[in-house]
Amino acid sequence: MQVEKYKIDGFNNELLADHKRRFEFVAADVANINDVLQKLEAFQIAIPSWALGTGGTRFGRFSGGGEPRSLEEKIEDVGILHALNKSSGAISLHIPWDIPQNHQAIKALAAQHGLVFDAMNSNTFQDQTDAPESYKFGSLQHVDKAVRDQAIAHNIEVIKQGVALGSKSLTVWLADGSSFPGQLNFRGAFERTLDSLKQIYAALPDDWKLYLEYKCYEPNFYSTTVADWGQSLLYVTKLGPKAFTLVDLGHHLPNANIEQIVSLLLMEGRLAGFHFNDSKYGDDDLTVGSINPYQLFLIFNELVEGMDARGMNHATDLGWMIDASHNLKDPIEDLLQSVQAIQIAYAQALIVDKAALQAAQKVSDVALAQEILQKAYRTDVRALVSEASLRAGGAIDPIGAYRSLKVRENLIKERGEKTVATGL
Amino acid sequence: MQVEKYKIDGFNNELLADHKRRFEFVAADVANINDVLQKLEAFQIAIPSWALGTGGTRFGRFSGGGEPRSLEEKIEDVGILHALNKSSGAISLHIPWDIPQNHQAIKALAAQHGLVFDAMNSNTFQDQTDAPESYKFGSLQHVDKAVRDQAIAHNIEVIKQGVALGSKSLTVWLADGSSFPGQLNFRGAFERTLDSLKQIYAALPDDWKLYLEYKCYEPNFYSTTVADWGQSLLYVTKLGPKAFTLVDLGHHLPNANIEQIVSLLLMEGRLAGFHFNDSKYGDDDLTVGSINPYQLFLIFNELVEGMDARGMNHATDLGWMIDASHNLKDPIEDLLQSVQAIQIAYAQALIVDKAALQAAQKVSDVALAQEILQKAYRTDVRALVSEASLRAGGAIDPIGAYRSLKVRENLIKERGEKTVATGL
Amino acid sequence: MQVEKYKIDGFNNELLADHKRRFEFVAADVANINDVLQKLEAFQIAIPSWALGTGGTRFGRFSGGGEPRSLEEKIEDVGILHALNKSSGAISLHIPWDIPQNHQAIKALAAQHGLVFDAMNSNTFQDQTDAPESYKFGSLQHVDKAVRDQAIAHNIEVIKQGVALGSKSLTVWLADGSSFPGQLNFRGAFERTLDSLKQIYAALPDDWKLYLEYKCYEPNFYSTTVADWGQSLLYVTKLGPKAFTLVDLGHHLPNANIEQIVSLLLMEGRLAGFHFNDSKYGDDDLTVGSINPYQLFLIFNELVEGMDARGMNHATDLGWMIDASHNLKDPIEDLLQSVQAIQIAYAQALIVDKAALQAAQKVSDVALAQEILQKAYRTDVRALVSEASLRAGGAIDPIGAYRSLKVRENLIKERGEKTVATGL
Amino acid sequence: MQVEKYKIDGFNNELLADHKRRFEFVAADVANINDVLQKLEAFQIAIPSWALGTGGTRFGRFSGGGEPRSLEEKIEDVGILHALNKSSGAISLHIPWDIPQNHQAIKALAAQHGLVFDAMNSNTFQDQTDAPESYKFGSLQHVDKAVRDQAIAHNIEVIKQGVALGSKSLTVWLADGSSFPGQLNFRGAFERTLDSLKQIYAALPDDWKLYLEYKCYEPNFYSTTVADWGQSLLYVTKLGPKAFTLVDLGHHLPNANIEQIVSLLLMEGRLAGFHFNDSKYGDDDLTVGSINPYQLFLIFNELVEGMDARGMNHATDLGWMIDASHNLKDPIEDLLQSVQAIQIAYAQALIVDKAALQAAQKVSDVALAQEILQKAYRTDVRALVSEASLRAGGAIDPIGAYRSLKVRENLIKERGEKTVATGL
Repeated sequence: MQVEKYKIDGFNNELLADHKRRFEFVAADVANINDVLQKLEAFQIAIPSWALGTGGTRFGRFSGGGEPRSLEEKIEDVGILHALNKSSGAISLHIPWDIPQNHQAIKALAAQHGLVFDAMNSNTFQDQTDAPESYKFGSLQHVDKAVRDQAIAHNIEVIKQGVALGSKSLTVWLADGSSFPGQLNFRGAFERTLDSLKQIYAALPDDWKLYLEYKCYEPNFYSTTVADWGQSLLYVTKLGPKAFTLVDLGHHLPNANIEQIVSLLLMEGRLAGFHFNDSKYGDDDLTVGSINPYQLFLIFNELVEGMDARGMNHATDLGWMIDASHNLKDPIEDLLQSVQAIQIAYAQALIVDKAALQAAQKVSDVALAQEILQKAYRTDVRALVSEASLRAGGAIDPIGAYRSLKVRENLIKERGEKTVATGL
Repeated sequence: MQVEKYKIDGFNNELLADHKRRFEFVAADVANINDVLQKLEAFQIAIPSWALGTGGTRFGRFSGGGEPRSLEEKIEDVGILHALNKSSGAISLHIPWDIPQNHQAIKALAAQHGLVFDAMNSNTFQDQTDAPESYKFGSLQHVDKAVRDQAIAHNIEVIKQGVALGSKSLTVWLADGSSFPGQLNFRGAFERTLDSLKQIYAALPDDWKLYLEYKCYEPNFYSTTVADWGQSLLYVTKLGPKAFTLVDLGHHLPNANIEQIVSLLLMEGRLAGFHFNDSKYGDDDLTVGSINPYQLFLIFNELVEGMDARGMNHATDLGWMIDASHNLKDPIEDLLQSVQAIQIAYAQALIVDKAALQAAQKVSDVALAQEILQKAYRTDVRALVSEASLRAGGAIDPIGAYRSLKVRENLIKERGEKTVATGL
Repeated sequence: MQVEKYKIDGFNNELLADHKRRFEFVAADVANINDVLQKLEAFQIAIPSWALGTGGTRFGRFSGGGEPRSLEEKIEDVGILHALNKSSGAISLHIPWDIPQNHQAIKALAAQHGLVFDAMNSNTFQDQTDAPESYKFGSLQHVDKAVRDQAIAHNIEVIKQGVALGSKSLTVWLADGSSFPGQLNFRGAFERTLDSLKQIYAALPDDWKLYLEYKCYEPNFYSTTVADWGQSLLYVTKLGPKAFTLVDLGHHLPNANIEQIVSLLLMEGRLAGFHFNDSKYGDDDLTVGSINPYQLFLIFNELVEGMDARGMNHATDLGWMIDASHNLKDPIEDLLQSVQAIQIAYAQALIVDKAALQAAQKVSDVALAQEILQKAYRTDVRALVSEASLRAGGAIDPIGAYRSLKVRENLIKERGEKTVATGL
Repeated sequence: MQVEKYKIDGFNNELLADHKRRFEFVAADVANINDVLQKLEAFQIAIPSWALGTGGTRFGRFSGGGEPRSLEEKIEDVGILHALNKSSGAISLHIPWDIPQNHQAIKALAAQHGLVFDAMNSNTFQDQTDAPESYKFGSLQHVDKAVRDQAIAHNIEVIKQGVALGSKSLTVWLADGSSFPGQLNFRGAFERTLDSLKQIYAALPDDWKLYLEYKCYEPNFYSTTVADWGQSLLYVTKLGPKAFTLVDLGHHLPNANIEQIVSLLLMEGRLAGFHFNDSKYGDDDLTVGSINPYQLFLIFNELVEGMDARGMNHATDLGWMIDASHNLKDPIEDLLQSVQAIQIAYAQALIVDKAALQAAQKVSDVALAQEILQKAYRTDVRALVSEASLRAGGAIDPIGAYRSLKVRENLIKERGEKTVATGL
């Protein structure tokens, strides 16, 4: 199914007068209002193909209704998202959960929904039924060359799939590590992993990037072979100029200052982009902005400042993806909430008074610097986000529209109450 | 299969002379050696029925070979454990993963292996295929009375199963909680949970105990309705004298002082016992003593001191259970390692010079108090544990015997390479 | 010095038109606008006497200029705060840092600034030059009765001071604990502490309350004798109906869900109130709302809901205090920022659509419940806070006024550049 | 005062027979016993000059008696330590707390006690009374060049002091960072710090090393400019081959896997060495091995493996220092406990069966690898440490000797009950 434009327009009409009043109120405070709106419009966040079904934990999984049963239906779901918010114009595939059979047809279907293919994701953390080797003790780090070779070949295959779809980057997340002291030699694991990555890197097309994600723990509970930003940076520096460090917000030890990491990776020219989500305890994979929205704003504040300092294009020079698990909510609603939270943080970061901030920093006026950031953060920018969506042809209130237009009910009608999408 | 006594004896014979030398060396330092050995012999740790198969994480599960395919085979596995270490003389069942069909037959089978039935475990964190209600949003806390009633009825059913098997306690662990701010009203969730627990409590036979476990997070990632020892204590105090707080070592926030919690629960007469495991990050469910063995010793130091102060029987007045997930190791080896780690910590706690420690505490001689604890902890008590096992008819080195006697190879022969036990 | 009303009015006049526009915009969305404004006006946050000087860490202290040199000057500083924001109408004294010599004169001075005396704070974590006993190894927990008696007598003396000033509560924060395993017997420490607290409790006037604060660590680094809310609740329940648990936002283990604790303490009728601050790592004592403002909002959401459910008066039935350390900022500016952050969180909590939230919770509509909370939180309520201040005779923008009126410069002129206030 | 050799011999004589029995028992299990003993003898741990007085926290400081009142007395104290354990043959000075007036005399005094001068420590985290600039907002990172220049000059002065004493390395620990979002620009702070470090680096003699320490937080509570090993590595790589990363065990976020960091820094050839201590919560600066001795063993396991793999000399190729704060214990006793804990961990690491471990790792035999590490760790190696001390002319039981010989009582007689050493 698709959400037709006229339905969205109908929904918008009800809200338009009120929206106008709100937009004008906030716009009056924003000097660079057109620039802000253009940037918001241009900012697209990729939706991962595995996030369209209900996720689960090791303790259970409670599926919802109308989940997509195929890659085609996943693209349809992202199409719905994008129709509503005009900010989800890309899809990030996970192989082997979503292997396209006919690349041209899939590309055409995506294009029909206004979607492109963002970073490809490989999977060497689960065994595949037809694979001879097991990843029980790791993949790219494995002591057994046969396992490493299988994992390398899989990654190269994913690149090929991506080339056929027009993707330009490969995201490598490794579960590799150990759960007990003594299980592996850290140096050996690093060296083998680096060697495997080099082989994958060698297979990258010239215009591709390799994104290397880090994670402090889970599913291994003693060590992880790409455990923190420092380790990822060590690998990507050794790999070459097409390798970058990917930040997943939930992959840090408690209390980590993520925004500082972001700033330094940008400084080094090695920031790949983001897997957005939120968390309170570990890799909780909750809706973006649902737990600590100020942190999200601070991250965007660094992004805007750092990208501008390097003359980067906000929309295209980094990879923006959501990576959350929707255990309790309708996945599409959850994603709409996540995208909106990102847009709000981005909008707030865009309206920070940079000149005033720099001046305050120059004289160590700590209280004033805090005031300047809080002023932007405390501003209600929802109307800016709505206006950007409206101008691009989306809904003033995407979640409201989704509910009002009874999208999920229609999907259940089409697909049934008991469907289970592939993914975690 | 069973591990026959003569095989263990044969294995022991090889090690006997060396063991004797080691035992005599350490025994020379232990004033109360017979008391220590008797206590070690009497100390039995229950094996959970779900821990005999390979566990997994939300990212995947890598099964091993020869896993038990039925409750009968699980009992057989615990029998093997117990034959080897003579300290695993109890099994803790999880319903509905292990519903006995013929209770008398199951009891007889267990007795044949020298096993009794420890605490029964209910499960309201997964949906059962035949159940009308879903636990997606909780069980005993659920806003819908029908769900709560189903969960209460399930717990009462588990008590009945336990009565038929000779168990004397019910362990309630609740996944109930919320993953997002606003999802539930904390007070309402507490009150509904308390009301549900009261109904279960009312169904307890007179000589039964209810163990209420707490856990800070997972599978819910914002709040948990029995989240810490303070909350559990609040519930059990309101329930009555048969309700107690169960401590799982992996269920705390980072850096928690678990030994102090243990001491205070003992002081209040509300400590149920333990789910033993170890962890580095969260509820990692690793082998007991594999990450922080000193903490385990400190916990046993509080247990010995506190139980003695209350005149309690170490072996029988609290519930001792392992609750670990064996993702990478042979489950039986992992359990043998866990039991040994517990015995070592217990033996070390038994040889602490209590009189000297109290004297040091009385004058705030901090350095001396540390010396006294470290003296016991640094003592190599493995020979004490071996001697206790030997005297009880077990192996001097249970893991060595398990490998030497090729137990797993035999289990694979009997049960096959591709078996998957129920459990996490 | 004092900030005269006409100066504040002069400052306000410049902002009035713009403020009016902003207030009307936000007021249009608030159904119960007068109720919200009245509650904001009535809400007073006590300023601790030790927070008016520059704080420090164990690594150093960098004093600012114009710090108050006496209790009288501290009262003057709180008077300045209150004149500016009309929400800091109380002062919380710390004994022995601020022992009044002439209680009537001090009361009169405070009254002149519109201030009353909130909770009194005792100090048994530092040795006093004239005291015979040392608190090196604890105070109320000490193994030596002479030390405990000294600490008890000090607390009773603090109550007497408070009675003379019109205070109605005693806050007990204990540094008591241990830094090494073995140093103390947890049960013994608990029992001695309880016994000491009972003696203090016995000295409480009928209309007084005892607030027992908890803290997970620091200055002791292994155990703390009132370490978490569960322990504090255990003590206060044993003490009697005039004893309550005080929550300091920075005194929790990483990732603790403080709002749930608040809700449960309210449910039990044992919440004393708050020491407000913010933190990223430990007890960082940062400006309220500077690190995680959403958490602060969620706490206020529980407070409003829970107090309303019990028919409590928001302004008077709990104790509201700031407890932060101002190492880098002008203490008065820092306190103005803290008070404003509290007011913003409170205002946001007041405008949550409770009926809609309850309805969403009743059907486990998790996404909608999140939307409802976020709607209130994302609202820019600064104009509500300004309006409440304005109506009460304060400044529209207290920090702006403070800077514009050059208050600090005047204080430095009066008191000198090199003054050091007592406190941490 | 000095502890004369004949007194130690007298003390040893009482213990000799029992020691011999214990040593022979454990030596029987150690294939490479002479190698182990020689390495233990050669292993010297530097004592920081600031650790000889009682430390404190921001909440207070409780001094002990007989604390050293001068650099000469500090050297005397380290001399006592070294006479007792023969493993503390170096002292690490902190400038400006301990500025030598006459370098030749100080060197001679140290030599008389068998001591050399280890790494020099600069201090730019406290303001000095005579310094024109303040470090309130940082030192090497400061926005004001005058402050940076002062901090650079101080570091260069410390190098000069070190040259005069025969030291070969400078340890730079920076408190620099920020306590509030917005306070500084992370990239700017990094770049200025790097520039300052380059100037210091340029002043290093050819045979000197620069050790750059990292710390996640405190005394700044939002960001730290050298916050983790990844950041330190980034700086030292940019500085040049004489710059290395120093690991302080207490400077990590909760649950960090420090041993993996150690392994990777060794792999990169950038490990400077250690500041040893232990902690439960933050930078608690507790006695080494008092909280998590298994972690210490795991770190030494990586050190031994990694240094051997690179052909490094255990004793001389890295810097080994203690950095703890003795708030509750006699500092000398505390240091004796710390050194012993280090020696035990080192001895246990030396007796790990490396060949067996590598073989187990090669086949991913996780349970066996754990057994191998635990076998070494569970061995009571105290007699090995005692034997090494004995052979070198020290005490079998240094703490026992210290108490038996009434060293502290004599120091108090000499120096008085009320002395306060410089330091934290």
